[in-house]
Amino acid sequence: MLRASQASRLTAFAQQAAQHLSSTAAAAAAATPPPSVGRLNHVAIAVPNVREAAAKYRDVLGLKVSEPQALPAHGVTVAFVDLGNTKLELLEPLGAASPIAKFLDKNAAGGIHHICLEVEDIQASAAHAARGARLLDPQPKPGAHGTPVVFLHPKDMCGVLTELEEVKR
Amino acid sequence: MLRASQASRLTAFAQQAAQHLSSTAAAAAAATPPPSVGRLNHVAIAVPNVREAAAKYRDVLGLKVSEPQALPAHGVTVAFVDLGNTKLELLEPLGAASPIAKFLDKNAAGGIHHICLEVEDIQASAAHAARGARLLDPQPKPGAHGTPVVFLHPKDMCGVLTELEEVKR
Repeated sequence: MLRASQASRLTAFAQQAAQHLSSTAAAAAAATPPPSVGRLNHVAIAVPNVREAAAKYRDVLGLKVSEPQALPAHGVTVAFVDLGNTKLELLEPLGAASPIAKFLDKNAAGGIHHICLEVEDIQASAAHAARGARLLDPQPKPGAHGTPVVFLHPKDMCGVLTELEEVKR
Repeated sequence: MLRASQASRLTAFAQQAAQHLSSTAAAAAAATPPPSVGRLNHVAIAVPNVREAAAKYRDVLGLKVSEPQALPAHGVTVAFVDLGNTKLELLEPLGAASPIAKFLDKNAAGGIHHICLEVEDIQASAAHAARGARLLDPQPKPGAHGTPVVFLHPKDMCGVLTELEEVKR
Protein backbone atom coordinates (compact mmCIF):
# COMPACT_ATOMS: atom_id res chain seq x y z
CA MET A 1 0.00 0.00 0.00
CA LEU A 2 1.19 3.52 -0.80
CA ARG A 3 1.73 6.04 1.91
CA ALA A 4 -0.35 9.22 1.71
CA SER A 5 2.66 11.34 0.65
CA GLN A 6 3.56 8.86 -2.11
CA ALA A 7 -0.05 8.78 -3.35
CA SER A 8 -0.13 12.57 -3.38
CA ARG A 9 3.11 12.77 -5.39
CA LEU A 10 1.85 10.16 -7.87
CA THR A 11 -1.43 12.02 -8.33
CA ALA A 12 0.44 15.27 -8.97
CA PHE A 13 2.69 13.49 -11.46
CA ALA A 14 -0.31 11.93 -13.23
CA GLN A 15 -1.98 15.34 -13.47
CA GLN A 16 1.16 16.94 -14.92
CA ALA A 17 1.53 14.09 -17.38
CA ALA A 18 -2.12 14.45 -18.44
CA GLN A 19 -1.71 18.22 -18.87
CA HIS A 20 1.45 17.69 -20.90
CA LEU A 21 -0.23 15.14 -23.18
CA SER A 22 -3.26 17.39 -23.59
CA SER A 23 -1.20 20.47 -24.47
CA THR A 24 0.98 18.38 -26.82
CA ALA A 25 -2.16 17.16 -28.63
CA ALA A 26 -3.48 20.72 -28.85
CA ALA A 27 -0.16 21.94 -30.20
CA ALA A 28 -0.09 19.11 -32.74
CA ALA A 29 -3.64 19.95 -33.83
CA ALA A 30 -2.75 23.63 -34.13
CA ALA A 31 0.39 22.77 -36.10
CA THR A 32 -1.52 20.53 -38.54
CA PRO A 33 -1.99 22.59 -41.66
CA PRO A 34 -5.65 22.99 -42.57
CA PRO A 35 -6.79 21.09 -45.68
CA SER A 36 -5.95 22.87 -48.89
CA VAL A 37 -8.75 25.19 -49.97
CA GLY A 38 -8.32 27.56 -52.83
CA ARG A 39 -9.29 28.77 -56.25
CA LEU A 40 -12.70 30.16 -56.90
CA ASN A 41 -14.36 27.56 -59.12
CA HIS A 42 -17.40 29.72 -59.90
CA VAL A 43 -19.84 32.38 -58.81
CA ALA A 44 -23.41 31.09 -59.25
CA ILE A 45 -26.01 33.63 -60.34
CA ALA A 46 -29.70 32.69 -60.19
CA VAL A 47 -31.62 34.19 -63.10
CA PRO A 48 -35.27 34.02 -64.18
CA ASN A 49 -34.32 33.34 -67.83
CA VAL A 50 -30.93 31.87 -68.69
CA ARG A 51 -31.07 32.76 -72.41
CA GLU A 52 -31.81 36.41 -71.66
CA ALA A 53 -29.08 36.45 -69.01
CA ALA A 54 -26.59 34.83 -71.40
CA ALA A 55 -27.40 37.46 -74.05
CA LYS A 56 -26.85 40.19 -71.45
CA TYR A 57 -23.38 38.98 -70.50
CA ARG A 58 -22.50 38.49 -74.18
CA ASP A 59 -23.88 41.76 -75.51
CA VAL A 60 -23.22 44.20 -72.66
CA LEU A 61 -19.84 42.84 -71.58
CA GLY A 62 -18.66 40.99 -74.69
CA LEU A 63 -18.02 37.82 -72.69
CA LYS A 64 -18.04 34.25 -74.00
CA VAL A 65 -21.11 32.34 -72.81
CA SER A 66 -21.80 28.64 -73.42
CA GLU A 67 -25.05 27.24 -74.82
CA PRO A 68 -27.53 26.64 -71.97
CA GLN A 69 -27.81 23.01 -70.90
CA ALA A 70 -30.50 21.37 -68.77
CA LEU A 71 -29.41 19.45 -65.66
CA PRO A 72 -32.72 17.87 -64.55
CA ALA A 73 -31.06 15.97 -61.68
CA HIS A 74 -29.98 19.30 -60.19
CA GLY A 75 -33.12 21.28 -61.03
CA VAL A 76 -31.37 23.91 -63.13
CA THR A 77 -30.60 24.96 -66.68
CA VAL A 78 -27.08 26.34 -66.70
CA ALA A 79 -24.90 28.49 -68.96
CA PHE A 80 -21.24 29.23 -68.23
CA VAL A 81 -19.69 32.69 -68.61
CA ASP A 82 -15.96 32.34 -69.25
CA LEU A 83 -13.89 34.91 -67.31
CA GLY A 84 -10.49 33.39 -68.07
CA ASN A 85 -9.45 32.80 -64.46
CA THR A 86 -12.84 31.52 -63.27
CA LYS A 87 -16.46 31.45 -64.43
CA LEU A 88 -19.95 32.64 -63.69
CA GLU A 89 -22.69 30.02 -63.72
CA LEU A 90 -26.07 31.38 -64.76
CA LEU A 91 -28.76 29.15 -63.26
CA GLU A 92 -32.43 29.12 -64.26
CA PRO A 93 -34.84 26.98 -62.21
CA LEU A 94 -35.81 23.71 -63.93
CA GLY A 95 -38.72 21.76 -62.46
CA ALA A 96 -40.93 22.44 -59.46
CA ALA A 97 -38.35 21.33 -56.88
CA SER A 98 -35.50 23.52 -58.16
CA PRO A 99 -33.13 24.50 -55.34
CA ILE A 100 -33.04 28.09 -56.61
CA ALA A 101 -36.80 28.65 -57.00
CA LYS A 102 -37.23 30.07 -53.49
CA PHE A 103 -34.27 32.43 -54.01
CA LEU A 104 -35.89 33.81 -57.18
CA ASP A 105 -39.22 34.23 -55.39
CA LYS A 106 -37.41 36.69 -53.12
CA ASN A 107 -35.12 38.15 -55.82
CA ALA A 108 -37.23 38.36 -58.97
CA ALA A 109 -34.51 39.98 -61.11
CA GLY A 110 -31.94 37.36 -60.05
CA GLY A 111 -28.82 37.67 -57.94
CA ILE A 112 -25.71 35.94 -56.67
CA HIS A 113 -26.77 32.61 -55.16
CA HIS A 114 -23.45 31.14 -53.95
CA ILE A 115 -19.70 30.99 -54.47
CA CYS A 116 -17.79 27.73 -54.95
CA LEU A 117 -14.26 27.11 -53.72
CA GLU A 118 -12.14 24.16 -54.82
CA VAL A 119 -10.71 21.73 -52.26
CA GLU A 120 -8.34 18.78 -52.71
CA ASP A 121 -9.96 16.46 -50.17
CA ILE A 122 -13.67 17.08 -49.56
CA GLN A 123 -13.87 14.85 -46.46
CA ALA A 124 -10.95 16.59 -44.75
CA SER A 125 -12.11 20.08 -45.72
CA ALA A 126 -15.71 19.40 -44.67
CA ALA A 127 -14.56 18.03 -41.29
CA HIS A 128 -12.30 21.05 -40.79
CA ALA A 129 -14.97 23.56 -41.85
CA ALA A 130 -17.58 21.91 -39.61
CA ARG A 131 -15.62 23.10 -36.57
CA GLY A 132 -16.63 26.68 -37.40
CA ALA A 133 -19.63 26.53 -39.73
CA ARG A 134 -22.70 24.34 -40.10
CA LEU A 135 -22.82 22.03 -43.12
CA LEU A 136 -26.18 21.97 -44.94
CA ASP A 137 -25.72 18.20 -45.38
CA PRO A 138 -23.48 16.26 -43.01
CA GLN A 139 -21.97 14.20 -45.85
CA PRO A 140 -20.59 15.33 -49.23
CA LYS A 141 -22.89 14.63 -52.20
CA PRO A 142 -22.27 14.63 -55.95
CA GLY A 143 -22.64 18.21 -57.22
CA ALA A 144 -23.62 19.60 -60.62
CA HIS A 145 -20.14 18.82 -62.03
CA GLY A 146 -20.31 15.19 -60.82
CA THR A 147 -17.71 15.72 -58.08
CA PRO A 148 -18.53 15.68 -54.34
CA VAL A 149 -19.57 18.95 -52.71
CA VAL A 150 -20.71 20.34 -49.38
CA PHE A 151 -22.45 23.64 -48.67
CA LEU A 152 -21.66 25.82 -45.64
CA HIS A 153 -24.53 27.72 -44.02
CA PRO A 154 -24.54 31.37 -45.13
CA LYS A 155 -25.25 32.59 -41.59
CA ASP A 156 -21.91 31.10 -40.51
CA MET A 157 -20.01 32.49 -43.55
CA CYS A 158 -20.64 36.26 -43.50
CA GLY A 159 -23.99 35.86 -45.26
CA VAL A 160 -22.45 33.95 -48.18
CA LEU A 161 -23.71 30.49 -49.16
CA THR A 162 -20.38 28.73 -49.72
CA GLU A 163 -19.91 25.52 -51.71
CA LEU A 164 -16.75 23.43 -51.35
CA GLU A 165 -16.10 21.18 -54.35
CA GLU A 166 -13.47 18.47 -54.62
CA VAL A 167 -11.40 19.07 -57.75
CA LYS A 168 -8.54 16.69 -58.48
CA ARG A 169 -5.47 18.25 -60.07
CA MET B 1 -34.18 72.41 -113.93
CA LEU B 2 -34.56 68.64 -113.61
CA ARG B 3 -37.38 66.83 -115.25
CA ALA B 4 -39.70 64.89 -112.95
CA SER B 5 -38.34 61.52 -114.17
CA GLN B 6 -34.73 62.64 -113.55
CA ALA B 7 -35.61 63.92 -110.06
CA SER B 8 -37.34 60.65 -109.28
CA ARG B 9 -34.30 58.61 -110.44
CA LEU B 10 -31.95 60.81 -108.40
CA THR B 11 -34.13 60.44 -105.31
CA ALA B 12 -34.18 56.65 -105.69
CA PHE B 13 -30.39 56.65 -106.14
CA ALA B 14 -29.91 58.81 -103.03
CA GLN B 15 -32.13 56.46 -101.03
CA GLN B 16 -30.20 53.41 -102.19
CA ALA B 17 -26.89 55.09 -101.36
CA ALA B 18 -28.15 56.03 -97.89
CA GLN B 19 -29.34 52.47 -97.28
CA HIS B 20 -26.02 51.08 -98.44
CA LEU B 21 -24.04 53.45 -96.19
CA SER B 22 -26.32 52.68 -93.25
CA SER B 23 -26.05 48.89 -93.65
CA THR B 24 -22.28 49.19 -94.15
CA ALA B 25 -22.01 51.16 -90.89
CA ALA B 26 -24.17 48.58 -89.09
CA ALA B 27 -22.06 45.74 -90.46
CA ALA B 28 -18.88 47.53 -89.39
CA ALA B 29 -20.30 48.07 -85.90
CA ALA B 30 -21.33 44.40 -85.69
CA ALA B 31 -17.91 43.30 -86.93
CA THR B 32 -16.10 45.50 -84.38
CA PRO B 33 -15.11 43.18 -81.54
CA PRO B 34 -16.46 44.36 -78.18
CA PRO B 35 -13.87 45.80 -75.77
CA SER B 36 -11.94 43.13 -73.96
CA VAL B 37 -13.63 42.23 -70.65
CA GLY B 38 -12.43 39.34 -68.61
CA ARG B 39 -10.93 37.96 -65.45
CA LEU B 40 -12.77 38.24 -62.19
CA ASN B 41 -10.69 40.70 -60.18
CA HIS B 42 -12.61 40.13 -56.94
CA VAL B 43 -15.85 39.27 -55.21
CA ALA B 44 -16.64 41.96 -52.61
CA ILE B 45 -18.29 40.79 -49.40
CA ALA B 46 -19.73 43.35 -47.00
CA VAL B 47 -19.22 42.32 -43.37
CA PRO B 48 -20.10 43.93 -40.04
CA ASN B 49 -16.63 43.20 -38.60
CA VAL B 50 -13.67 42.65 -40.90
CA ARG B 51 -11.42 41.08 -38.24
CA GLU B 52 -14.04 38.50 -37.31
CA ALA B 53 -14.70 37.80 -40.99
CA ALA B 54 -10.97 37.44 -41.68
CA ALA B 55 -10.66 34.97 -38.79
CA LYS B 56 -13.60 33.00 -40.20
CA TYR B 57 -12.05 32.62 -43.65
CA ARG B 58 -8.68 31.75 -42.10
CA ASP B 59 -9.92 29.31 -39.44
CA VAL B 60 -12.86 27.61 -41.16
CA LEU B 61 -11.39 27.41 -44.65
CA GLY B 62 -7.65 27.69 -43.98
CA LEU B 63 -7.30 30.55 -46.48
CA LYS B 64 -4.66 33.27 -46.50
CA VAL B 65 -6.11 36.62 -45.41
CA SER B 66 -4.25 39.95 -45.40
CA GLU B 67 -4.13 42.35 -42.44
CA PRO B 68 -7.14 44.69 -42.57
CA GLN B 69 -6.36 48.16 -43.90
CA ALA B 70 -8.45 51.33 -43.65
CA LEU B 71 -9.31 53.18 -46.86
CA PRO B 72 -10.97 56.34 -45.52
CA ALA B 73 -11.38 57.85 -48.99
CA HIS B 74 -13.54 54.86 -49.96
CA GLY B 75 -15.37 54.47 -46.65
CA VAL B 76 -14.22 50.91 -45.97
CA THR B 77 -11.74 48.82 -44.05
CA VAL B 78 -10.68 45.97 -46.31
CA ALA B 79 -8.98 42.58 -45.97
CA PHE B 80 -8.09 40.41 -48.97
CA VAL B 81 -8.70 36.65 -49.04
CA ASP B 82 -6.25 35.02 -51.47
CA LEU B 83 -7.90 32.33 -53.61
CA GLY B 84 -4.99 31.82 -55.99
CA ASN B 85 -6.86 32.67 -59.19
CA THR B 86 -8.76 35.65 -57.75
CA LYS B 87 -9.63 37.16 -54.35
CA LEU B 88 -12.42 37.97 -51.98
CA GLU B 89 -12.48 41.48 -50.56
CA LEU B 90 -13.98 41.67 -47.08
CA LEU B 91 -15.35 45.19 -46.57
CA GLU B 92 -16.36 46.73 -43.24
CA PRO B 93 -18.03 50.16 -43.26
CA LEU B 94 -15.68 53.00 -42.25
CA GLY B 95 -17.23 56.35 -41.50
CA ALA B 96 -20.83 57.54 -41.62
CA ALA B 97 -20.96 57.84 -45.41
CA SER B 98 -19.68 54.35 -46.18
CA PRO B 99 -21.09 53.07 -49.47
CA ILE B 100 -21.81 49.67 -47.89
CA ALA B 101 -23.60 50.89 -44.74
CA LYS B 102 -27.06 50.71 -46.33
CA PHE B 103 -26.37 47.19 -47.61
CA LEU B 104 -25.48 46.05 -44.07
CA ASP B 105 -28.61 47.69 -42.66
CA LYS B 106 -30.56 45.27 -44.87
CA ASN B 107 -28.16 42.32 -44.47
CA ALA B 108 -26.94 42.40 -40.89
CA ALA B 109 -24.82 39.22 -41.15
CA GLY B 110 -23.13 40.48 -44.33
CA GLY B 111 -23.32 39.24 -47.91
CA ILE B 112 -21.95 39.55 -51.41
CA HIS B 113 -21.98 43.23 -52.38
CA HIS B 114 -20.58 43.20 -55.92
CA ILE B 115 -18.33 41.44 -58.39
CA CYS B 116 -15.50 43.18 -60.25
CA LEU B 117 -14.42 42.32 -63.79
CA GLU B 118 -11.18 43.57 -65.34
CA VAL B 119 -11.22 45.55 -68.58
CA GLU B 120 -8.38 46.83 -70.73
CA ASP B 121 -9.93 50.16 -71.70
CA ILE B 122 -12.46 51.53 -69.22
CA GLN B 123 -13.78 54.25 -71.55
CA ALA B 124 -14.43 51.79 -74.37
CA SER B 125 -15.94 49.16 -72.07
CA ALA B 126 -18.13 51.68 -70.25
CA ALA B 127 -19.41 53.09 -73.55
CA HIS B 128 -20.12 49.58 -74.83
CA ALA B 129 -21.81 48.46 -71.59
CA ALA B 130 -23.94 51.62 -71.48
CA ARG B 131 -25.79 50.40 -74.58
CA GLY B 132 -27.37 47.64 -72.48
CA ALA B 133 -27.04 48.63 -68.82
CA ARG B 134 -27.23 51.86 -66.85
CA LEU B 135 -23.96 53.18 -65.38
CA LEU B 136 -24.22 54.39 -61.77
CA ASP B 137 -21.88 57.26 -62.71
CA PRO B 138 -21.64 58.41 -66.31
CA GLN B 139 -17.85 58.77 -66.13
CA PRO B 140 -15.21 56.37 -64.74
CA LYS B 141 -13.81 57.34 -61.33
CA PRO B 142 -10.75 56.16 -59.41
CA GLY B 143 -11.68 53.00 -57.47
CA ALA B 144 -10.30 51.48 -54.29
CA HIS B 145 -7.21 50.19 -56.15
CA GLY B 146 -6.47 53.62 -57.63
CA THR B 147 -7.49 52.60 -61.15
CA PRO B 148 -10.61 53.89 -62.93
CA VAL B 149 -13.86 51.98 -62.43
CA VAL B 150 -17.52 52.12 -63.38
CA PHE B 151 -20.45 50.32 -61.77
CA LEU B 152 -23.33 48.82 -63.76
CA HIS B 153 -26.82 48.93 -62.23
CA PRO B 154 -27.72 45.58 -60.66
CA LYS B 155 -31.26 45.70 -62.10
CA ASP B 156 -29.72 45.64 -65.58
CA MET B 157 -27.22 42.86 -64.73
CA CYS B 158 -29.35 39.97 -63.40
CA GLY B 159 -29.48 41.47 -59.91
CA VAL B 160 -25.69 41.69 -59.65
CA LEU B 161 -23.94 44.99 -58.92
CA THR B 162 -21.08 44.79 -61.43
CA GLU B 163 -17.88 46.82 -61.27
CA LEU B 164 -15.62 47.18 -64.31
CA GLU B 165 -12.03 48.08 -63.42
CA GLU B 166 -9.28 49.08 -65.84
CA VAL B 167 -6.27 46.86 -65.23
CA LYS B 168 -3.22 47.34 -67.45
CA ARG B 169 -1.30 44.16 -68.34
